[in-house]
Formats: sequence, structure tokens, C-alpha cells
Amino acid sequence: MPRPFRLVSIEEKPERTLVKAGSCVFGGEIVPVIAGPCAVEDEALYLATAEVLASLGVSMLRGGVFKPRTSPYAFQGYGDNGLAVLRQARSLTGLPVVTEITDVRQVEEASEAVDMLQVGSRNMHNFALLREVARAGLPVLLKRGFAATIEEWLLAAEYMLAEGNGDVVLCERGIRTFEPATRNTLDISAVPVVKSLSHLPVIVDPSHASGSWRLVGPLALAAVAAGADGLMIEVHPHPNRALCDGEQSLTVERFTALLSDMKKVAEAVSRRV
Amino acid sequence: MPRPFRLVSIEEKPERTLVKAGSCVFGGEIVPVIAGPCAVEDEALYLATAEVLASLGVSMLRGGVFKPRTSPYAFQGYGDNGLAVLRQARSLTGLPVVTEITDVRQVEEASEAVDMLQVGSRNMHNFALLREVARAGLPVLLKRGFAATIEEWLLAAEYMLAEGNGDVVLCERGIRTFEPATRNTLDISAVPVVKSLSHLPVIVDPSHASGSWRLVGPLALAAVAAGADGLMIEVHPHPNRALCDGEQSLTVERFTALLSDMKKVAEAVSRRV
Amino acid sequence: MPRPFRLVSIEEKPERTLVKAGSCVFGGEIVPVIAGPCAVEDEALYLATAEVLASLGVSMLRGGVFKPRTSPYAFQGYGDNGLAVLRQARSLTGLPVVTEITDVRQVEEASEAVDMLQVGSRNMHNFALLREVARAGLPVLLKRGFAATIEEWLLAAEYMLAEGNGDVVLCERGIRTFEPATRNTLDISAVPVVKSLSHLPVIVDPSHASGSWRLVGPLALAAVAAGADGLMIEVHPHPNRALCDGEQSLTVERFTALLSDMKKVAEAVSRRV
Amino acid sequence: MPRPFRLVSIEEKPERTLVKAGSCVFGGEIVPVIAGPCAVEDEALYLATAEVLASLGVSMLRGGVFKPRTSPYAFQGYGDNGLAVLRQARSLTGLPVVTEITDVRQVEEASEAVDMLQVGSRNMHNFALLREVARAGLPVLLKRGFAATIEEWLLAAEYMLAEGNGDVVLCERGIRTFEPATRNTLDISAVPVVKSLSHLPVIVDPSHASGSWRLVGPLALAAVAAGADGLMIEVHPHPNRALCDGEQSLTVERFTALLSDMKKVAEAVSRRV
Repeated sequence: MPRPFRLVSIEEKPERTLVKAGSCVFGGEIVPVIAGPCAVEDEALYLATAEVLASLGVSMLRGGVFKPRTSPYAFQGYGDNGLAVLRQARSLTGLPVVTEITDVRQVEEASEAVDMLQVGSRNMHNFALLREVARAGLPVLLKRGFAATIEEWLLAAEYMLAEGNGDVVLCERGIRTFEPATRNTLDISAVPVVKSLSHLPVIVDPSHASGSWRLVGPLALAAVAAGADGLMIEVHPHPNRALCDGEQSLTVERFTALLSDMKKVAEAVSRRV
Repeated sequence: MPRPFRLVSIEEKPERTLVKAGSCVFGGEIVPVIAGPCAVEDEALYLATAEVLASLGVSMLRGGVFKPRTSPYAFQGYGDNGLAVLRQARSLTGLPVVTEITDVRQVEEASEAVDMLQVGSRNMHNFALLREVARAGLPVLLKRGFAATIEEWLLAAEYMLAEGNGDVVLCERGIRTFEPATRNTLDISAVPVVKSLSHLPVIVDPSHASGSWRLVGPLALAAVAAGADGLMIEVHPHPNRALCDGEQSLTVERFTALLSDMKKVAEAVSRRV
Repeated sequence: MPRPFRLVSIEEKPERTLVKAGSCVFGGEIVPVIAGPCAVEDEALYLATAEVLASLGVSMLRGGVFKPRTSPYAFQGYGDNGLAVLRQARSLTGLPVVTEITDVRQVEEASEAVDMLQVGSRNMHNFALLREVARAGLPVLLKRGFAATIEEWLLAAEYMLAEGNGDVVLCERGIRTFEPATRNTLDISAVPVVKSLSHLPVIVDPSHASGSWRLVGPLALAAVAAGADGLMIEVHPHPNRALCDGEQSLTVERFTALLSDMKKVAEAVSRRV
Repeated sequence: MPRPFRLVSIEEKPERTLVKAGSCVFGGEIVPVIAGPCAVEDEALYLATAEVLASLGVSMLRGGVFKPRTSPYAFQGYGDNGLAVLRQARSLTGLPVVTEITDVRQVEEASEAVDMLQVGSRNMHNFALLREVARAGLPVLLKRGFAATIEEWLLAAEYMLAEGNGDVVLCERGIRTFEPATRNTLDISAVPVVKSLSHLPVIVDPSHASGSWRLVGPLALAAVAAGADGLMIEVHPHPNRALCDGEQSLTVERFTALLSDMKKVAEAVSRRV
């Protein structure tokens, strides 16, 4: 059966793509770890967390400032003020920063503050946003829609490559199934399936997939073993006080221990964390 | 368990909401039928079809001009030229017109050309679009995300009511399941469930749900019997030549026969088509 | 694509099959209604209920005596004692009776007490049971597995026809999806899809599909409108006291009203209840 | 919320259960690998394969003799003749053997030929079989139903423990979702979730989960990293000639390489293969 995508396909480009966002490289021997709280909630707290994460050797900082929330009454993020905090964090730590864009009108301003733009799961089918984000020229982190097939996900990336932006990193973050024990079902098979179809790097977000910090460790190790080109993990100094997704955030202590385990598994599969 | 939505809930407003879009009223004794091709593809053809549908007594015309397509290489709609055709169709037939908006930057122009704005299934979680469409002041047709729970769908409507626009019509169009025999699985239960939770009207789109014109008739009759407040049906004079979704479009002849059957079932449940 | 089933297919036998179980006929103009409590719990209560249902004109009685329960600690049915009650109910009312078989060792004894054997949703893939039930010579009610595709369901029926038993009635009872508002998602499309592929009758069980008596009415009417060849509905004189599935059982009063509505919808689609 | 299971719960028995089947132990530091063809198809071929697998150090042999097949026209297994072959393989290699039971009437004979009885995915809700298999006194491999929640799976194990058989090993083998790129979606999260709820060992079958030998390697490594207490892998000397599931079988060469990789990942998480 002919495949519906072209530019993202491994037939079109057999060598694997390396995507660089500042000092962070996706798709090579090193498996970068993106870490940070779900949302930028407080300037001092975010900066302190960023410094700790930098000292632990993470490759990129995450922090949401435009939050897509199911309810209009939930915390929606700090918007432009949050971007300023991200800019400070970048300058303080020297680490690149990624943030999610939810509206075409945010692209310009956000592009000046961060090193990588994220399209979230709920917007994977928002084709206007895909195009506009691609045109910004920054590398893009494209999360899989929680009910998107792998083919649809690759077609969403195709929208970006067709705009001339080849720096797309795919991120598996769980799909919706009948199983209620986890918030989503991490589709770990997506890692080798994507690698067999496309030259683009694929990373895994075990925090959103599981919705529970207790599961983040085993799933992160599984992702490394399965060949993931990176991990995106929520870390919060005080998960109980988080305004958003505290239940799935690791404390700094647990994250530090996990990093050590990830290094071992990465070596076992000839990679490095 | 307390419900996460407020303004859309039947506890907040026990009497059922009537949503008016031009001469068409959703939520009353009459069950309006929205009909037309999936996309506006050709001016003459669209206008001719519109006249035929008007003569058959449909309540509203549909026609896509901004098409969200999974592949960047698929027909993406005629955009602004399409809006001009819709405006002509409205003036020719006197019928109200609904079209889908996929980008916040389309809202202003589209609002001048049509009577109702549609947010499609892929954009149900696009909260920026929900807000902007709500602010346009026109009644809104809010399709259910193909993997959205009923609660999430009502929360998407809540975004609109929270913007001050109470004229929201919900549209069930099938959900994604493991069953491959239909494009989506029409969740017919959503009709009585929504009516038990919310005062908003709920209609059904059997064309997108099934993906096959052969199934549209039985599903349309089921929707009327289950209490749907309207139907949205794809009709194309020459389905074989359609640029988009021809497989699920009824011919005018089949649609005419279905309308007659729908009238009978509507009477059986004390409604009128 | 060639279809994997043969004997059940409409290509093999274009005329529709009529399945007779005592005085009840599935597949013809009349749409039979099977009614009764989920389980036989009390002899006097079951017989009294059976008499009321007979006076209302139902076509067949249902009553579970071997109950497949997710937990080993839940009520498992009255087994052989229950069969004796079913036999009494049949003789008292003159109505045919259907009961579910969960073990090949129950087939012989049950076959002498009832007029139709049911294979439940959890056992649709229990091929040993399919064969043994088919060999009993009674007509069979084959429920769809809650995660079975329509093709797999027809192949389960094929097992029975391949054993020489052509008297198989298919029963759609909801599939498992991500939607938590209903116990299962009634796949109403399965009715016209099955009718397009097979000559076998297909009926609908809105009680198990929805898990809520509030939804049974609208879904039963939808099933009739969509062309179902029968309905299976749980009715209990005192749902609050039921040992099993009381939440989804209609009271006799509500069932009586629903029968009246079903008659009207049936007439609208040229059938009779 | 109180949990519906008792005997399988970690609250009831905090120390982890070790399940022994011959020389093979599940639940300890060592991660056993069960390997073999999907079905016993040919005596000489099966025995030759068994010897090779034994020489590679696998812990247990698998081989289906009673095959549950979706179509009545597919190869159904060699039944009793197959049991004789399994008995020979056991005596030839000294390895324990596991086979699937699909009918209560097979339990007695099979129990004399093998060391562990398997209940397959399609029969996880076949409660009569669960009870009868438990009573045989052998350790049991209980596969997760392809649409069973983790809670239902643990309740199926509870049926066995309630019969007095505590030697139950759980096996995750993929669940049914909307994603068509894999035969099922391996729910890797089930491993840590089960370990947080139950004292029973949990293993993973990446062959049935993925349906493709290309994915078996990455998924097997992911399972070890996530903490699985064993692996079940299909190996066939000539996958192209297999009567059943050849597409998902590894050749001996590929399996040998995978074993070497699994050893490294196991060490990284302080286990041994």
C-alpha cells in the first residue's frame, strides 16, 4: 500500500535526521532529557527549579505558559509573563527551552523567547497551527494526538516539512483507550514503528502518558530500552502544591535517582543519557 | 460527583434552549435537516444543488470552504472564494448557511457570509478557536471530538457559554473505536446522555460517523427515534465526482426518499421533520 | 477483499433467514421483544414477572441462571434450580424462554428446559462453547463480544453454521470504548452493517449496552428505527432489590410505556412490535 | 475506593509471590524467557527447535496444541497428538513446557503432559475454564484479555486463587485500540501497575502484542526495563512456513541476538536473563 506521507518517510531520506535546539541534539547517540514543571507558575520557583535541573545535567527545560485546559475554569497559564520567565531561565542556565503554542497569534512572541516550539496533543489536528509554527523557523516538538494513529501523526509532521521546516521531533505521550488505571495508555510500540517509517527523531513523555509519578520511572526506562531519542519528564520541587498535574510530577530527589537508572539502561542499548 | 461544567448544565437552566440560525430553529418540536455537499467545489454545481435542496424543504445548507485535511496534499477547500458562493446560495434560496472555521483568522470574514459557524471534530480541543468563534456572535455548531468524552464536549461548549454566547448546538458525529467496518462508531447514546445533562440542542451527523452512504439512512432514522434535535447529512448530485467524501454522500434521489422516511419516524416520536 | 466467512454471508444465501424459537420468529416483519430480569433470583417473583410480561405481549422470556461475573465473589446465578423455574415460567405463560450457557457441561440439561440458548458477550471467543451450543440443535442467541469486530462476530456465527446449526440470531449489546458515560457504547451501526453482510437476523440489547434504565427507551426506539430484528430488554418488578444489574432494569410501568412507543416507531419503518 | 479483589492484592500479601514451574521460577531476580513456535505443527521440527532453544538457555518451552482461532476454517492445532510431542520435548530437553487450554475437557489430559497451563486472551472471561484450570494444581499462565481492564484481569486471577491455586503468572499481551500499525497495543504500563496492586509475577508477550517480528526486539527490551518478571517470545526456525503467526516469529538467529541484548538491559535494572 502506498504511504500517504512523503517528506517524513525513510524512503525519501534514509539517513536519520538530527534536530538541534540550542545545545540539545535529538536523534544521535545521546538521549536528551527535557525536564521541568508542567507550567510556569511562579518566577522564583521556576528559576530555582531550572538551576537545580541544570546542575543535574538535563538537556532542555520545559515550562508551559499557554495551557490548553479542558475546562474554561482551570488555570490557563501565565501567557506573556511566563515567556519572560522562560527567557530568564534560559539565560540563567544556558539551557534551551521549549514551550507549547496553542494559538497562531502566540507564535511570533514565543519564538523570541524559546528555542523550540511545542504543538500539544490536543492541537495535533489543528492544521492552521501546524503550518504557522513550522514557519517560525524554530525546531518543533510535535506531540501525538491522544487519539491519532501513527500515520496521522506523521502526516501532521508532513505539514511542517511541506512548509520547509525539517526540524521536527515527534513525541509519544499516550493514547486514549478503555483502560482506566492510567490517564492514557503509553503506546511504547510507537517508538520502533516510527523509526521504521520515518527519519525523524521520536521521544517519549511518560508523565502525561501515565498521569502518575509512580509509573514515570518504569516507563522512562522502557522508553530508553525501546530506542527513544529523548525523554520529556515533569519535575516539580513541590508536586503537592503544583497548580497543574502535580500528581504526575517527580520530586527532584526521585528524578535524580531516575536519571541514574536511565544512564544504565541507555548504556545497555549503546546510547548515553 | 460534582459536574465540572456549569452554564451548559440542566441544573443551571432546566428549560431547553432554542438556538435560532436564520429561519432554522434547533431544540423545538421540529427536527431541522442540514444538507449539502461536504465541500464547495464548483460554484454552478453548488448553487444548483442548493436550489434542489431548498425545494425539498431542508432547513439549512452546509458547505465546507476551509477543509481540515489529514494530509497536506489533499484538497484544502476554496477558502474565501467559497464564502462568496455560500453567500450567493443563501441569497438564492433564502436558507441559512453553516460552514466550518479552522483558524481564528477566518472568523471575521466568514461571519459576514454565513448564519452559523461550525467548529469541527478535530478542533474541539482548540480552545483558542472555541473562544474566538463564540465571540463572533453567531450561533455555533460544535462537533464532538472523535475521541472526546461527552463531558469534555460539554466543557468545550462551556468555553463558548463562558464567552457569553449561549447559542450552541452540539453535533454527535461518531467516535474512534477498534471497529473497522465504519469510519467512526456513531455514539447514538450520546443523544439521550447529552439531553439528560444539558439544556443545549444535540444533533447527529450520520454521514461522517459512518463514512458510507449505505448506512446514512438507518442511522438518520435511529437518530430521530433517539430524540436528536436535528440531522446533518451530506448530499451531492454526483457523489462519484466529489473531491471530498463522495463515498458518504447521498444522491438527491436517495436523500429525497430518506426525508420521507424521517418524517414518519419523527411523527412516531411526536416530532416533525 | 475476500470475506473470511462463508455460510453466514449474504452472497451464500441472499434471502433473509427466519429463526424460530417456539412461537417467536426473528427476521420477519414482526420485531420480537425478549424481556425479563437479568437473573432468576426468586421463584415466586420470577413467575409473577413472567405472567405480567406475557400479559403485555412480549415474545420471549429471558432469565439468567448461569451468570458470568467479573468477580468470583458476586452472585453467580441459581444454576439447575433456576432451570426448573424457567421451565415453570414457560409452562405457565406458553412463552419460549432463552437463557445463557457459560460452560459446555451445562448444554445438555439447559437444552431440555429452554427454547433458545444464549452465548454471552464474554464467551463469544470461546470456540469450544460455540461448537457445543450449536450441536444442541436449539436456536442460538449469539451476543457480540464487547471488543469483537463485526467480522469476528460473524465468524463466531460461522462456527455454529459450520456445525450444521443455521438458527443463529446475532445480538448487538455495546462495545468497549473510552467513553465513561455509558457502560458500553451501543454500536447502532452494527445493525445495518450486519444486514448488508449476512442473512442472519440481528437484534439489540439496550440494557446491557447502556447500563442505565434511563437510556434504554431512546436506544430501543433507535434500534427499531435502524432496522433491528428484535429487542432484548431487562425488566424487573423491583429494580432496587435486584441482585444483578438493577440499575439497568426498567420497571413494568416504564416497560409498558416503552412498548407503546416502540409500536409507533415500528409502524413508521413498516414493521410491527 | 475499596478494591474488588482480595487474595491477589498486595495488601493481603505484601511479599512477592514466586511461581515455580519445573526448574523455571517467575518473580525472582532472574527473568525467565519462554520461547517456541506458536503451534506444534510437526514433530521433528518442534523437537529440533526445542533442542536449539534449550542450548540457548531459555527457561521454558511454549507450543500450542489447542488453538483458538477466529475462523472455523483456520488451522485448529494438533490436539492430543500435539501433547505427545510436548511430552517428548520436555523429556528431550529437560525444560518445563507450557500450553494453552481452551476447553474444560482438555484439562486432565494436558495436565499430565505439561508443567504449566495457559489461559489465553480470548478465554480470560471464561470463568468455567478459569476454575477448572486452577483446580488442576499446576501453575497457570493467565493472559490478559485483549479488552480487559487490569482490574478485570486481576479478578480473573482472583477466581484461581479463590480455588486454592496461588501459582498464577499474569501475562500482558497487548490490548485492542484504534491504532492499526500494530496487531494490538502493548500496554507496557500494565507491568508497573500490576506490581503496585498485586504480589503475583507479571510477564510480557511482545510477539502477540505487536504481530510483527520487527517490533519484538524493542518491545522485549522495554518490558525488561519496565520490570517484567519474564518474557514469552515466538521463535520459529522457518517463519515463512509457519501454519500460524509466522509474521510475528523471530528466527533463531534474531532470537539469539535479542537474548544477548536482553541480558544487558536486565543487568542495567539489577535483574538477570
